[in-house]
Amino acid sequence: MAVNVQDTALALEKMIRESAEYNQLKEEYARVFEEEATKNLFNNFRNIQLQLQEKQMTGQPISEEEVQEAQKVVAIVQQNPTIVKLMEAEQRMSSLIAEVNKIVMRPLEEMYSTQMN
Amino acid sequence: MAVNVQDTALALEKMIRESAEYNQLKEEYARVFEEEATKNLFNNFRNIQLQLQEKQMTGQPISEEEVQEAQKVVAIVQQNPTIVKLMEAEQRMSSLIAEVNKIVMRPLEEMYSTQMN
Ligand SMILES: [Ca+2]
Ligand SMILES: [Ca+2]
Repeated sequence: MAVNVQDTALALEKMIRESAEYNQLKEEYARVFEEEATKNLFNNFRNIQLQLQEKQMTGQPISEEEVQEAQKVVAIVQQNPTIVKLMEAEQRMSSLIAEVNKIVMRPLEEMYSTQMN
Repeated sequence: MAVNVQDTALALEKMIRESAEYNQLKEEYARVFEEEATKNLFNNFRNIQLQLQEKQMTGQPISEEEVQEAQKVVAIVQQNPTIVKLMEAEQRMSSLIAEVNKIVMRPLEEMYSTQMN
């Protein structure tokens, strides 16, 4: 990898580490994992999400029962302010990463859109 | 978005634009699109690839005939040095972007792997 690209990518990594978005996310995570009940609820929620995602991606059928189970856990999770704050922080961090990716991918998108016309 | 993150992402965009990988890719693209026959062959190849990818992602069946058609076009494309050079340049550009993404995603991966344990 070109030194200039690598150096700038490393600088960006540092800026992300120092960003409010990243540090808030870290704090909210620590808060969720600090309390046994909240941690278990969150891990349960995350596992169900990952299972459903995997089934979707591999084209496996999702039963009515699984959908209901997932909806139940989402409803419980939405009552938990510590987890809600974590999910909001995750959303802000995702937006930051999406904006970064959009900028970094701009040269390629530009090139493809020019050549394809 | 935090100004520091945005500024550094913009600096990274600039470095990518100035990289040998990006400029070689641009050159190889221009070369393919310069010659009518090469351009048509390349567009044909790309369209078949995109169609197969879309079918895979949406879970549609791919017929034996489509597989053979794709293999035929790949074989023809591999005989075309201008397109082969473009594909090699695309591969180098993909590697660069993959390395950049790996660095940029390191803070998040670190956080998740710490919290999950
Ligand atoms: Ca607490
Ligand atoms: Ca030529």
